[in-house]
Amino acid sequence: MTHAGYTGALDIGGTKMLAGLFDEEGRLLARKRIETQASQGVLPVIARAALLIRELAQETGISPDRLTGIGCSVPGPLDSERGVVIFSPNLAWRDVPLAGLLSQELDVPVRIEDDARCAALGEARRGGARGAQNAVYVTISTGIGAGVILNGGIYRGSHGCAGEVGHMTLDANGPPCACGNMGCFESLASGTAIAARARQALLHGDETLLARFRAEPALLTAQQVIDAANMGDAVASRILETTAMYIGIGLAAIATTYDPEVIVLGGGVIQPDGALFQKARETFQARVISPLGSLVCIVPAQLGDESALWGAAALISDGRPLAIRQVIDV
Amino acid sequence: MTHAGYTGALDIGGTKMLAGLFDEEGRLLARKRIETQASQGVLPVIARAALLIRELAQETGISPDRLTGIGCSVPGPLDSERGVVIFSPNLAWRDVPLAGLLSQELDVPVRIEDDARCAALGEARRGGARGAQNAVYVTISTGIGAGVILNGGIYRGSHGCAGEVGHMTLDANGPPCACGNMGCFESLASGTAIAARARQALLHGDETLLARFRAEPALLTAQQVIDAANMGDAVASRILETTAMYIGIGLAAIATTYDPEVIVLGGGVIQPDGALFQKARETFQARVISPLGSLVCIVPAQLGDESALWGAAALISDGRPLAIRQVIDV
Repeated sequence: MTHAGYTGALDIGGTKMLAGLFDEEGRLLARKRIETQASQGVLPVIARAALLIRELAQETGISPDRLTGIGCSVPGPLDSERGVVIFSPNLAWRDVPLAGLLSQELDVPVRIEDDARCAALGEARRGGARGAQNAVYVTISTGIGAGVILNGGIYRGSHGCAGEVGHMTLDANGPPCACGNMGCFESLASGTAIAARARQALLHGDETLLARFRAEPALLTAQQVIDAANMGDAVASRILETTAMYIGIGLAAIATTYDPEVIVLGGGVIQPDGALFQKARETFQARVISPLGSLVCIVPAQLGDESALWGAAALISDGRPLAIRQVIDV
Repeated sequence: MTHAGYTGALDIGGTKMLAGLFDEEGRLLARKRIETQASQGVLPVIARAALLIRELAQETGISPDRLTGIGCSVPGPLDSERGVVIFSPNLAWRDVPLAGLLSQELDVPVRIEDDARCAALGEARRGGARGAQNAVYVTISTGIGAGVILNGGIYRGSHGCAGEVGHMTLDANGPPCACGNMGCFESLASGTAIAARARQALLHGDETLLARFRAEPALLTAQQVIDAANMGDAVASRILETTAMYIGIGLAAIATTYDPEVIVLGGGVIQPDGALFQKARETFQARVISPLGSLVCIVPAQLGDESALWGAAALISDGRPLAIRQVIDV
């Protein structure tokens, strides 16, 4: 098997897809982002993903037969060995043989992996967990998920469910979770939990910048609570403080099980310089068992919207050295 | 390196030590148990452990120079690479170069490992997790600890702390734990938690067989609560039911992080046929995220007091096939 060629990478999300082309030294030569348009159906989405890779090759002057493979990040659950997306609510896909279909379109080997695992791999190869043998990437947005890197590689568990940390119980008598359980990490610390706390504050009649949502509380999102807190709103700040406390407690549970060098925090709720991130890290340090508070680093994701793209590329290129990051947006 | 010889194994505990001698096919030829007598100091304990191995060799007619190595289980934390016990409260040991000292006494290579990890390895090689690639052994006694087997071998984490599951938070506002945190798995589901609940019931004036401890509640142990429940005591049964619920919730968190084939439950609090074990398993199945409730097996430890001994032997013999169990107590 030759490593002398180029690597393609795709990050297919529910609303957008990002493609990248990497040279033999692991440099990102070019990237391109378009709408996923999942509602058009499975095959059109895959055809457009393949077209995106072909366009990147053309625009960088690389012959498509010099591609050694395509790594593809996609929301799971999926079977990475068989290359099949089992069920992806975000894309409304069920039993889609994504690797086979993409491979047919582009005539190169394709590997697929769950988006949180790709992001973990990307951050481990190039981002906040660079150089770590054991690392966990935790994404906090609408829900909470994780990708786990153990002994330098992706750890999937015996049934592909390793890293379902969003559904650890952190409060045995806590609020109900979408999974049917109660007091899950996700029900206490996700964007959904932030919005739910804000709606509760509105019901309670608290005085807050968020009061404009009193007529239509369903429109209230986590981002609006974060924005209000950034504008000095006390109610919003208190909500984020409670949420950050639970994030810290959840990170402590992750540290006591996997004992990684680093936990990388990503996802829409996390602002690297924000009070929420700082408070989550403080709670982690206060509540995790000694000596892990000083040993396990909590860092924000460093690759922005590219974590999963770099991880997808690493699905193909792992074993080859990765060079300095150098991006041209085309 | 030859594998043609015999393997010695030691399980040094706070009160007792167990030694075993295994033949080249992994059969346990003979075992012997004595008091540890830790109060006599470090060197006498190590000398007696070495003597125990020599006696086993003599009694089975095996020349000591046919021993290829000794595996030794000991309460941690320890540094298995350097062979040093860093701190063992049970033995009152600090910075003891156990592997070096034992190796000097017996003139064979010695490997040491934490007792929960040895028990996990033993159960994975010969007991309840036999054949599993990923398995977790959870011991529930005075405290709660775990040993983690991933990809067929012991997983220690980046700082030797992997599997500190006793200090995951299961109830963010729960009772204080010895570690300084609150609502830890250990503070809710250990033998210590059982005894604490029983003392609370006595303070509350509940009618129970345990009322005989009202004058001296400090004498009340988890075992007495278990005994009272077995005699039909309603208060004791309710205490075990609450405890079992938290055990189930803790096992669910372990399953969602490691996603193993099997979780083996051991330790003094666990009776394989008891109501506590059954109820813990039921809670696990009800509270873990689908589909892990039907995929991850919860089984009792199968090697009795020998789990760690078999694991200690495997520290040396791994790579050699292990044969049918065949024990002669001498």
